[in-house]
Amino acid sequence: MEGDKSSGAGAGGLVLLNCFVSPFGNRVRIALKRKGLAYEEKHENLAPKSPLLLSSNPVHAKVPVLLVGGSPVCESLVILEFVDEAFAGNGEPLLPAAPCARAHARFWASYVDSKLPECAVRVWRSPKGAAAVEEGRKDLVAVLKTLEAELGAKPYFAGDALGYVDVALVPFAPWFLTYERLGGFSVAGECPALAAWAERCVRENECVAKSLPEAEDVFQFVCGMRKMLGLD
Amino acid sequence: MEGDKSSGAGAGGLVLLNCFVSPFGNRVRIALKRKGLAYEEKHENLAPKSPLLLSSNPVHAKVPVLLVGGSPVCESLVILEFVDEAFAGNGEPLLPAAPCARAHARFWASYVDSKLPECAVRVWRSPKGAAAVEEGRKDLVAVLKTLEAELGAKPYFAGDALGYVDVALVPFAPWFLTYERLGGFSVAGECPALAAWAERCVRENECVAKSLPEAEDVFQFVCGMRKMLGLD
Repeated sequence: MEGDKSSGAGAGGLVLLNCFVSPFGNRVRIALKRKGLAYEEKHENLAPKSPLLLSSNPVHAKVPVLLVGGSPVCESLVILEFVDEAFAGNGEPLLPAAPCARAHARFWASYVDSKLPECAVRVWRSPKGAAAVEEGRKDLVAVLKTLEAELGAKPYFAGDALGYVDVALVPFAPWFLTYERLGGFSVAGECPALAAWAERCVRENECVAKSLPEAEDVFQFVCGMRKMLGLD
Repeated sequence: MEGDKSSGAGAGGLVLLNCFVSPFGNRVRIALKRKGLAYEEKHENLAPKSPLLLSSNPVHAKVPVLLVGGSPVCESLVILEFVDEAFAGNGEPLLPAAPCARAHARFWASYVDSKLPECAVRVWRSPKGAAAVEEGRKDLVAVLKTLEAELGAKPYFAGDALGYVDVALVPFAPWFLTYERLGGFSVAGECPALAAWAERCVRENECVAKSLPEAEDVFQFVCGMRKMLGLD
């Protein structure tokens, strides 16, 4: 959070440091578009990381970073809350108003962060045929089923419209194809309501449709990374 | 979050499910005392876990849980924000008012959660003499030094008075003695300003002093757990 405040990030402007496949960075894209905020996006390749990324997020050296008049805000869920609070006048809030409902939404976003990426990475970044892939798949399916149970019969996690948990989770949907191909399972087969929810998020929300990469592009990105890491 | 709402937790009352050594549970103790809120505390032994804990936090089955008129709020940082929002009229808020400052505080509390427990557990829950202890110690000292750098010359992370990051971090202080004895290092030697901050938190804040266990009791608790796990 102590980045270079004299960077050319634009006084007063919003600059998002992101990588096009990052579920975390794409949360911020969705939130900014939903609020109707103009911003500039700088694409990070992750290797090598840009001097701006390293100076803006020296603690984690990770995307996303939102530069606000040059000052960095880091960590995707922290950025979502920041956007919701700093631009409270722009459209519907991401978080509900009631403290209990806010806690409920934060609980589930925190669940996504603490469980989903850790299982998923074992599926897509383990050597081909490793036992870790099968264990990762089992754990990932259990996490997705838990999320599906929380979704229940509602159209969105928040109820009738896109909210905080939806924005936190839906950027993982373009990764489902990669999980399926490398883990040997079907998200729609295991969790039909969750698969339908992901399609609904894209179909009914322009801010989502315009923020997410194609699933095939994510898979090709992962294939390139696996080749580089010697995993196949 | 879907716990048994018909439990005898008391309509309208606050009930904290906690274990006396839990840094996460003791965050909530501090927040409730700071807000001057009356609450009942139910002590969990962790093995076996109580039916009330299992029904109140079916997803994680972990303390702390704050029952609010019987409805559970789970995850310690989520509970801190809930307490701050639901009882906004009770004394000074834990989080500052400005969105940028709130993001800064949330970033550092999230840093504590994502880094500190994972390193610490390798120090205190690895077999005696294992390489993991030494690796855990190195990583833990690096985390504490990063936190010390963020503290800087300020009396508290929040500035002149106890705030969100202080409440998130200080319940780990009674564990320092355990980390030191099992990891073979001195927190005050490595991070003198952080050690002084921990003492200041206790000395100047009754809500902290009344919420934390004795360091020696934490160590004895850990020794008992290590014996049970066959680690010594």
